Amino acid sequence: MLDLISPLVVSNTTKIVLLSSDGLGGLPDPGTGRSELETARVPNLDALATRGACGLIRHVAPGITPGSGPGHLGLFGYDPLTYRVGRGVLEALGIEFDLRAGDVAARGNFCTVDAQGLITDRRAGRIATELCVQLTERLREIRLPGVEVFVEPVKEHRFVLVLRGAGLDGRLSETDPQLLGKPPLPVRALDAAAARTAELVNTFIAEARRRLADAAPANMVLLRGFDLLPALPRFPEVFQLRPAAIAAYPMYRGLAKLVGMEVLKTGSSFGDEVATLREYWDAYDFFFLHYKDTDKAGEDGDFGAKVAALERLDGFLPALEALRPDVLVVTGDHATPSVLAGHGWQPVPLVLWSRHCGADVVTAFSERGCGAGSLGVLPAQHLMPLVMANALRLTKFGA
Amino acid sequence: MLDLISPLVVSNTTKIVLLSSDGLGGLPDPGTGRSELETARVPNLDALATRGACGLIRHVAPGITPGSGPGHLGLFGYDPLTYRVGRGVLEALGIEFDLRAGDVAARGNFCTVDAQGLITDRRAGRIATELCVQLTERLREIRLPGVEVFVEPVKEHRFVLVLRGAGLDGRLSETDPQLLGKPPLPVRALDAAAARTAELVNTFIAEARRRLADAAPANMVLLRGFDLLPALPRFPEVFQLRPAAIAAYPMYRGLAKLVGMEVLKTGSSFGDEVATLREYWDAYDFFFLHYKDTDKAGEDGDFGAKVAALERLDGFLPALEALRPDVLVVTGDHATPSVLAGHGWQPVPLVLWSRHCGADVVTAFSERGCGAGSLGVLPAQHLMPLVMANALRLTKFGA
Repeated sequence: MLDLISPLVVSNTTKIVLLSSDGLGGLPDPGTGRSELETARVPNLDALATRGACGLIRHVAPGITPGSGPGHLGLFGYDPLTYRVGRGVLEALGIEFDLRAGDVAARGNFCTVDAQGLITDRRAGRIATELCVQLTERLREIRLPGVEVFVEPVKEHRFVLVLRGAGLDGRLSETDPQLLGKPPLPVRALDAAAARTAELVNTFIAEARRRLADAAPANMVLLRGFDLLPALPRFPEVFQLRPAAIAAYPMYRGLAKLVGMEVLKTGSSFGDEVATLREYWDAYDFFFLHYKDTDKAGEDGDFGAKVAALERLDGFLPALEALRPDVLVVTGDHATPSVLAGHGWQPVPLVLWSRHCGADVVTAFSERGCGAGSLGVLPAQHLMPLVMANALRLTKFGA
Repeated sequence: MLDLISPLVVSNTTKIVLLSSDGLGGLPDPGTGRSELETARVPNLDALATRGACGLIRHVAPGITPGSGPGHLGLFGYDPLTYRVGRGVLEALGIEFDLRAGDVAARGNFCTVDAQGLITDRRAGRIATELCVQLTERLREIRLPGVEVFVEPVKEHRFVLVLRGAGLDGRLSETDPQLLGKPPLPVRALDAAAARTAELVNTFIAEARRRLADAAPANMVLLRGFDLLPALPRFPEVFQLRPAAIAAYPMYRGLAKLVGMEVLKTGSSFGDEVATLREYWDAYDFFFLHYKDTDKAGEDGDFGAKVAALERLDGFLPALEALRPDVLVVTGDHATPSVLAGHGWQPVPLVLWSRHCGADVVTAFSERGCGAGSLGVLPAQHLMPLVMANALRLTKFGA
């Protein structure tokens, strides 16, 4: 898809706003038969749906529940099945570590082992974050031949390990046996090509054990979720856009950075994000805006809180529209139905407005409403071409 | 798709019923403008469509009419374009022959040849099935180097030939010239890799001619529909389900067995099948139920009979629902519109109910009704992931 789009891009001065309301999609409350969006009073979103073209975004495939990584990569135009982002990479993005293509990242835990090397606590009694910071400084001193080693504290007993160098491979088994009374497992290469990386990681683990010997309860490490950051085509080059990301949460800033967007400094609330958008309006032509509250309420299984989060979001819509974007898109990275209290596989409502979007029959921004829209059920990686077309930034295919 | 799903499967105790009403889809009667489903009184199916998520299943591709093999493999989660099941294999499945991966199967006819070896009757006067049984016993004695030979009677002049051994290939031409007064054709390899198999089959034919010399009118054989059974990923392992198939007709039992389902003994009516379902409810967590009458009536071009078959099926729905499955799916393996008196290429109505299926606007279980459903037009191999998601048996993709 990116190979098809890239040669068709033409320049223009149009401005695009892509608003991702995290976990936007929902499911009906069994009591009322109405979903969160159908329950919320969202007059501005409904008006946008009435003027715009609607549909449902499917991020991966029918029945597949997207994580936040694949969900956002899809919205950015990257087929999530081609460009995979695993757990180690996401953990590194979550602390805004500057990951590069070819890096192998893993989630680390400090743990406790006894004199025989058997695990007695997989989380080292959840040590304080300050201690985690000190111990990662010790581990950062470890040297491995031919690669750079990064060890970054996260929170409590958690850290991120990143190896950087040529020829690394993330196909490695995990060291956490998930049981007490067992020793940490050595890392095994799950593919012959990962043999050298496995050896490097095992060397790291042996060194870590030595350097942590006096640091009980955090006297050993467990590593899992090994993952290689694939080379991603750069968003600004593929789409010839000056893209800016505005997100209060680190992981979403990290995802945007991964594809080459400029990440703007902003505050901790969505109001701050909108102020940032206004401030930088002239400097960029594509804005990725992230709204977290819908997901958080859904994850908590709190139907009412999600309804309230949607109503708050709706209240910000006039401020976005006042900037007069040429293309305004509201959708999400995945569903988080309150009744599931977690991510869902359901396709996610989408509204796209531009002067050229065409009208459809939809008058309500909801799962059911958008299901009748002119955009149908749209694979996520097809959204960006549609956005670019509506921004009059694509020429025709074939003369 | 199977490679994507398999690592996401998590265990659960939920129960799934997949009801395939063979040849379910239809076309409007030119007189009334209403299809079989729109004509039938199916209040239980309509109620299920109202509560459930609806759509249309497309088994292969637009305009492509599926046979029963690809139609069902699609419903079981296997892309019918990747996992091909040809005529020889289907014929073998139709007699519940225990086919294995790598087997080459062909449809055989006894025929009559004259003293010059020219065909005078392509069906050997449709000999009695008992004679067919005797003659296949003669052919079964034929020995070929390095392969096992199976010759199984079917009905009248028809039999199945199966070769089992390493390195066989089904890309072979047919021996039936489709004309009288011509000799049977030798088998040719349609690919260099099939040369040895062609030689083996030609040896079999020469031997068959010798052993049948005194058996006029059944003094020769014609072979067609050569087909290799591909290695299919096993359904119980891919989906981590304990699957049971309940089907009165051998071919559907054979298709289910092909993917590793347990085939339950049942009677000859759909009522028997439902009784079997009830009996084995606790022992399995996935049930494939097959209803044949809709296809039979459609194949006969009998619109009224198909309407009646649909109404009978509708009457069984409360018995299925009384078992309280967590996921209940009603669809078909292909359309058999009465006005075509044969399989059709039209996508087939689908309803999927679970507590998490989401609501849509559909209130009638029909081609038109389901066309407005939230599942859209769904490639068949995407049904199982959706079923698994609704059974809460899939974790998310990407963290």
